[in-house]
Amino acid sequence: MNHEDWVRTELRELSKSLGFRYTPPEEIEDRLTRVRMSMEKEEVEALLVIQKMDFYYLSGTTQDGFLFLPSEGRPLLMIRRELERAKVESPLDHVAPLKSIRELPSLIQTHFGRLPNRLGLELDVLPVRDYFKYQELFPATRFMDGSSILREARKIKSSFEIDLMRKGGEIGKKVYQEAKEILKEGMTEIEFGGLLEAVAKKYGHEGLLRVRSLNYEAYTWHVLSGITGGIVSQSDSPMGGLGLSPAFPVGASLRVMKAHEPILVDSGTCYHGYQVDETRMFSIGKMRQKFIDAYNACREIHDAVLDEVRPGADCEAIFMKTLRLAERLGYRDSYLGPPGLQTRFIGHGIGLELNEFPFLAQGQPYPLEKGMTFAVEPKIVFPGEGSAGFENTVVVTQNGYEILTPVEEEIFEV
Amino acid sequence: MNHEDWVRTELRELSKSLGFRYTPPEEIEDRLTRVRMSMEKEEVEALLVIQKMDFYYLSGTTQDGFLFLPSEGRPLLMIRRELERAKVESPLDHVAPLKSIRELPSLIQTHFGRLPNRLGLELDVLPVRDYFKYQELFPATRFMDGSSILREARKIKSSFEIDLMRKGGEIGKKVYQEAKEILKEGMTEIEFGGLLEAVAKKYGHEGLLRVRSLNYEAYTWHVLSGITGGIVSQSDSPMGGLGLSPAFPVGASLRVMKAHEPILVDSGTCYHGYQVDETRMFSIGKMRQKFIDAYNACREIHDAVLDEVRPGADCEAIFMKTLRLAERLGYRDSYLGPPGLQTRFIGHGIGLELNEFPFLAQGQPYPLEKGMTFAVEPKIVFPGEGSAGFENTVVVTQNGYEILTPVEEEIFEV
Repeated sequence: MNHEDWVRTELRELSKSLGFRYTPPEEIEDRLTRVRMSMEKEEVEALLVIQKMDFYYLSGTTQDGFLFLPSEGRPLLMIRRELERAKVESPLDHVAPLKSIRELPSLIQTHFGRLPNRLGLELDVLPVRDYFKYQELFPATRFMDGSSILREARKIKSSFEIDLMRKGGEIGKKVYQEAKEILKEGMTEIEFGGLLEAVAKKYGHEGLLRVRSLNYEAYTWHVLSGITGGIVSQSDSPMGGLGLSPAFPVGASLRVMKAHEPILVDSGTCYHGYQVDETRMFSIGKMRQKFIDAYNACREIHDAVLDEVRPGADCEAIFMKTLRLAERLGYRDSYLGPPGLQTRFIGHGIGLELNEFPFLAQGQPYPLEKGMTFAVEPKIVFPGEGSAGFENTVVVTQNGYEILTPVEEEIFEV
Repeated sequence: MNHEDWVRTELRELSKSLGFRYTPPEEIEDRLTRVRMSMEKEEVEALLVIQKMDFYYLSGTTQDGFLFLPSEGRPLLMIRRELERAKVESPLDHVAPLKSIRELPSLIQTHFGRLPNRLGLELDVLPVRDYFKYQELFPATRFMDGSSILREARKIKSSFEIDLMRKGGEIGKKVYQEAKEILKEGMTEIEFGGLLEAVAKKYGHEGLLRVRSLNYEAYTWHVLSGITGGIVSQSDSPMGGLGLSPAFPVGASLRVMKAHEPILVDSGTCYHGYQVDETRMFSIGKMRQKFIDAYNACREIHDAVLDEVRPGADCEAIFMKTLRLAERLGYRDSYLGPPGLQTRFIGHGIGLELNEFPFLAQGQPYPLEKGMTFAVEPKIVFPGEGSAGFENTVVVTQNGYEILTPVEEEIFEV
């Protein structure tokens, strides 16, 4: 059997038997239609989609390549590696091999009949050197920033996407259930975090969490215990933790966790590219009362956010409301970080990336819409002592919300 | 105690007690000197260093910020978050808080006396949208590509860096030793891979592997068994594996590993940002003879590469030599991938990133130098059946090489 036939038959069968779900053709069509509507409004004649998650969103594959999407006419998928897998994974019907990016103009010319006058690129992530290359390859084309078109399209999730996120939530639930059996006195933060991640992987978690950023790196082993829960670091997070070195100064450390301390586990799960994010607290023996109280305050703030969640609710207003509630509960100086280092968001959109729209944050005055998915994560931080936090990922429904991370809400005491 | 004092005393003590190694001042000075020499040659008046690993290399910290490095005069570290940790982690003595990138010009003006006429940026990774912002902020400045200056400086490792890589190699050795106890019949690839990663983390592996690329994602759970070892995917690797979904179609899958199959484990370790990479084979019961033979051929090719390694040896010539050897050993059509999909490198530089100089590859005709570090990874692939591979990370010494990944070389049969 030749390679092409083998991939189409045996590799496809193997993939499906091991749980691969391919994006259905009608799902891709819906997404293309939404993107094309924005393209027309923004007068972008075509998009060249390069960034992996945008590319996956519109093609169904993450094989190495480019997607040329005209606002009118069929899209062209150009694949460097591996062509036959891309053909199996993507429902698009125009798929061409690409040896080098030097071939892009001629492939597009052949497919589209000419080169586009106005071409959108993902300028928020595309490296400058690559941009200069495209300018050489398309000397008569005017480039525009197409990234907001793509980010806007991706902010409303379909039922297909929400279902994948629910699956991620189910994996997370198993992780927290098994965590009770794993956590032992004498264990280090990173040992615990590493074992939780191994459990998640066993159930299909893909390991990587993705952020749309040059320097921001996501990770799943955010296990902070006692004093490390009060440490702030590089990340735009109420508490970064100690981490393992100056090269990775966030998340779990080699510190041994002690009895009665607050142990915070903020863990993301990724299933078919779709991420959910959740936080719960653990303790070995009964947790110190100060942190039980702070945890309950976080739950109260979380619930107050969810009380507001429905289509039309204003993202900034929800954030501001939590500031007032935190103050009333006595946590003005510890809510979302220590004084001077407090973060300014209570929720972040989540899906293929961890920093999608919407942001429930200061300076984000826009309404929630049905199908938006985000994580709500109140945290309370006491420097030198520790922290408490609670987090779920939710989707906005017709009249309210659905929690996608249905993990039990009590403190996990072992 | 105020925050500043607490970070300087207690956080610093805690970090050191848990194994943090800070980059020594003289190490940073050496690196700055090397970079400045290239800057003068390239007539770059100053660099604005943004990308996390370049930033870490020259400052010793990965807190969120920017490094302004003039070719003459002292560098200025500007930190968004978290300033006090950056002061502890970096030996640089000019460290300023930065609220927003809008402040960059005024901070640089104050420190440098004026704004630079020719400013180098990392154009190979810097997003276009950010570049446009810098053009607005520095309207009279001419921007240049400073990335090759930084990549050139980083290609020769110091004894401090090599020592961190040795530590990574020691972690890897423990992982492979414990792997023998972990591997069981009935386990899936990803379950095995996840547990190996948990072992590595327990000993200080930082979890992330880094690649200098928009779309290329590295990971440590490259466990391929039987048929999945013969699958090519998006990555520039002889075999990508099946992976977990179309969103992550590389590495370990949910396939159950079977007795007598070749099980390939290609695993990277990251310690204080420095990575090593290694591959060994496992089997449950005796491995099929075809793969034992292929494994031995990989070892022979690996040894033939190392026979050539010394300062002055040509990178492309070494690669070409392995093609001839693979053909002589009977693996012309399976060496480095199946026909039509073969990769064109036998080694890749490694350090803070997985795609550093040197590349032992076609089209890379330059000499090895003392202090270069790279992974040597012959692989042999039989589509539909499986693959074999062997890999070590080495450093070029005065007269030859030192292996940084001293794992036993026999097949791990359990």
